[in-house]
Amino acid sequence: MAELKAPSPDILQQFVAIVGEAHAISDAGAMAPYLHEWRDRYHGKAALVLMPGSVDEVSQILALANQTGTAIVPQGGNTGLVGGQIPSEAGDEILLNLSRLNRIREIDLAGNCMTVEAGLVLAQAQDVALNAHRLFPLRIASEGSCQIGGVLSTNAGGTAVLAYGNARDLVLGLEVVLADGRVWDGLKPLRKDNSGYDLKHLFMGAEGTLGVITAAVIRLFPIPAETATAMVGFRSLQDAAAFFDRAYQFGATELTAFEIIPRIGIEFVTRHFEGTKDPLQKSHAWYALVEFSSANADAGLASGVEALLAEALEAGEIADGTIAHSLDQAGALWRLREDMSEAQKYEGGSIKHDVSVPVADIPEFITRADQLIQLMVPGARPVPFGHYGDGNIHYNISQPPGQDKAIFLSHWEAVNAAVHEIVLDLGGSISAEHGVGQAKRDMLPHAKSEVELELMRSIKRTLDPKGILNPGKVV
Amino acid sequence: MAELKAPSPDILQQFVAIVGEAHAISDAGAMAPYLHEWRDRYHGKAALVLMPGSVDEVSQILALANQTGTAIVPQGGNTGLVGGQIPSEAGDEILLNLSRLNRIREIDLAGNCMTVEAGLVLAQAQDVALNAHRLFPLRIASEGSCQIGGVLSTNAGGTAVLAYGNARDLVLGLEVVLADGRVWDGLKPLRKDNSGYDLKHLFMGAEGTLGVITAAVIRLFPIPAETATAMVGFRSLQDAAAFFDRAYQFGATELTAFEIIPRIGIEFVTRHFEGTKDPLQKSHAWYALVEFSSANADAGLASGVEALLAEALEAGEIADGTIAHSLDQAGALWRLREDMSEAQKYEGGSIKHDVSVPVADIPEFITRADQLIQLMVPGARPVPFGHYGDGNIHYNISQPPGQDKAIFLSHWEAVNAAVHEIVLDLGGSISAEHGVGQAKRDMLPHAKSEVELELMRSIKRTLDPKGILNPGKVV
Repeated sequence: MAELKAPSPDILQQFVAIVGEAHAISDAGAMAPYLHEWRDRYHGKAALVLMPGSVDEVSQILALANQTGTAIVPQGGNTGLVGGQIPSEAGDEILLNLSRLNRIREIDLAGNCMTVEAGLVLAQAQDVALNAHRLFPLRIASEGSCQIGGVLSTNAGGTAVLAYGNARDLVLGLEVVLADGRVWDGLKPLRKDNSGYDLKHLFMGAEGTLGVITAAVIRLFPIPAETATAMVGFRSLQDAAAFFDRAYQFGATELTAFEIIPRIGIEFVTRHFEGTKDPLQKSHAWYALVEFSSANADAGLASGVEALLAEALEAGEIADGTIAHSLDQAGALWRLREDMSEAQKYEGGSIKHDVSVPVADIPEFITRADQLIQLMVPGARPVPFGHYGDGNIHYNISQPPGQDKAIFLSHWEAVNAAVHEIVLDLGGSISAEHGVGQAKRDMLPHAKSEVELELMRSIKRTLDPKGILNPGKVV
Repeated sequence: MAELKAPSPDILQQFVAIVGEAHAISDAGAMAPYLHEWRDRYHGKAALVLMPGSVDEVSQILALANQTGTAIVPQGGNTGLVGGQIPSEAGDEILLNLSRLNRIREIDLAGNCMTVEAGLVLAQAQDVALNAHRLFPLRIASEGSCQIGGVLSTNAGGTAVLAYGNARDLVLGLEVVLADGRVWDGLKPLRKDNSGYDLKHLFMGAEGTLGVITAAVIRLFPIPAETATAMVGFRSLQDAAAFFDRAYQFGATELTAFEIIPRIGIEFVTRHFEGTKDPLQKSHAWYALVEFSSANADAGLASGVEALLAEALEAGEIADGTIAHSLDQAGALWRLREDMSEAQKYEGGSIKHDVSVPVADIPEFITRADQLIQLMVPGARPVPFGHYGDGNIHYNISQPPGQDKAIFLSHWEAVNAAVHEIVLDLGGSISAEHGVGQAKRDMLPHAKSEVELELMRSIKRTLDPKGILNPGKVV
């Protein structure tokens, strides 16, 4: 990808002319918010921030970039956790922010789908769906700021994947601007289309390295008529595994969430957040927040879930459990899960992982990782939590109390490498839902076969021969 | 793709040596069953039929083919309807039949998935799942003979797509032999993996033109604890549309099937099959076979569906309805749907279509197509049936009674073209679930944008630069 060049002042002016002065930012101060993410782990420089207002402008920008060998970094709500949306430090890349492309193009109630543009904020998409008496089921922590384009480009996961799938599973069609500026209109709202290769899945999860997603047809679902939320306590992860199996066989697609939390996580949240409290009378080694929902108002979920918990208690799989009897109670249970990341901040430094393993191997993964951490950083406190049913554990580790934060964080890469080694040994993935971005690009050669890497590289060369799209990310 | 060559006797001998004499067929009579499909619409010739017994043998075959420029036509159960699995008439291609690769490699109950090889017959996969107390939900007419590899290579659809998705949605991982013989091991049983491009979706639905699928990790589901099957009658397609909406909002993922049948379809089946009978007291313009199922035994489906039908009757959406009260009754209702294709054979020639349109446009599509058919072939009898909820209508047309079959069938291409024109005008697909194969390859330039075709071609060139994989199919 040696053809990239720093854009000359003249070329920069041509880029500005495409979107108009009002939508181009070149002042360092004004560009700053787009050049680092909220945790400040990734920061870069840019020659220009462009905010196009139409697909045609995006097309012109990419055509000019391709012609002139200018690197383009696409960006949505700037909430990504792996630096995929942040340019390099060189300052010769152009940041392409999609926020202004935020229209709802069409709502198709009969087809249970809607066509929305890349810059639409996820929470707004959820609201638009609700107003149309439908559910857009994607739920992630950043939903108040992240945008549809970023969500699809990273194939976001979240807490409703069990029932509804990952972001890519919620998409019927895509519109993508290709590296040379051509527009692929794949916006068909069809549930079945076998008239050729499936191109949309190539662009989803590619983090803007193969094309820029500008719009999508996303699926809508009936709003659940009934939801049952419970918190249960386990003596061991093996018990959690047995109960997950029971819950899944009970409810299948009605099982919307199965999120595990270790005891230390409950302690962190209740210690640092006013109004939170221990969900069960005694303390337990592990907890799961379990949510069932059904579009069928007569599904009798409440009594069904009560019976399920009774059976699991009888079988010794759960040590205790509580079912929310109001939206407030359900909200309080969810808060224990949702505040986990935030609560860790009050406990000092935290080394994080976003990994997945086969569901059956979760207990082994956590046991092996915990043992390793105690050897590598004695006193460090693992806080593994997350999406049990997806095999996706956020294996986060809080620093030993009292230790210097910087010293603890200096172990980051060594700990990552060691934990990833266990994940790979179990046939898992070193990036379950956050993507590769800058953070994990250099790990891929170790994590993937040469055949797979070469396939990825050849697709990259085919779709972006000059390498202008998000260089240094993913592949 | 000018590099293809007819294999010399010496090269053919090298291919035979890979699988052994016992698993290579060169006798014309013995090859015959592999060279035409059951309806005999597509037939070809082959230089050799190879039946490899391991992935390594498939790898060696493709490596040699790539080296020598020999065309390879992959084949599973030979049930495809578009000729994708049938070689050309030239006789210089090698047919690669995957039937011997039929092992079940692993069943992962905790992960609700299993790893199976390409040659496993779909019905056997369903049985293996049932024996493990799980459901593999793919249901298609050819399930007794079609094989997993073919099912995934064509992204098969069927009658349970509404709740479970197309074949590609049931796959967690793939193993694929690439055009040059390298093996891509993407068999991870993970529900979340964002560590790079999603390669598996590229090979699924590509009909063996980008690689040969040799194994897959397929998803398993809980066996439904309760199933409710109903047949309802409508005065019009508009009423069917209203009732579909009601049924979907009622049940969402519990709505497993919503298959429409026109009055003439019921007449055909009851006329030609002993033991079938009109499902409702009076006759109606349209019928829908509706199936709900739930893993939750307490979901109260039976009473829920009864109430749903009562409401729809009250609202005037359905004219009548009946709910099956036994497995036998449910079977009898399903038979009316399943015998549709077969019944048409007794009514003479039939011109077929496998198309999809946005769900909201189904009534318009059928109305416009019916009008057109009456102009093109007066007296011809449209029998549009199929997967309403997927927008996927098998718009089949039976010949006018008494007309010469050959004369009627001579209209095939003109009728296809005219019906596809309406489909494209409505933003639909000219191949919803059967694929492109030989049948629709020449239609793609009309049905797709130049950008999309060029994307497909460039991916084909990248993954199969010599064009040895299933030449003349899809792209």
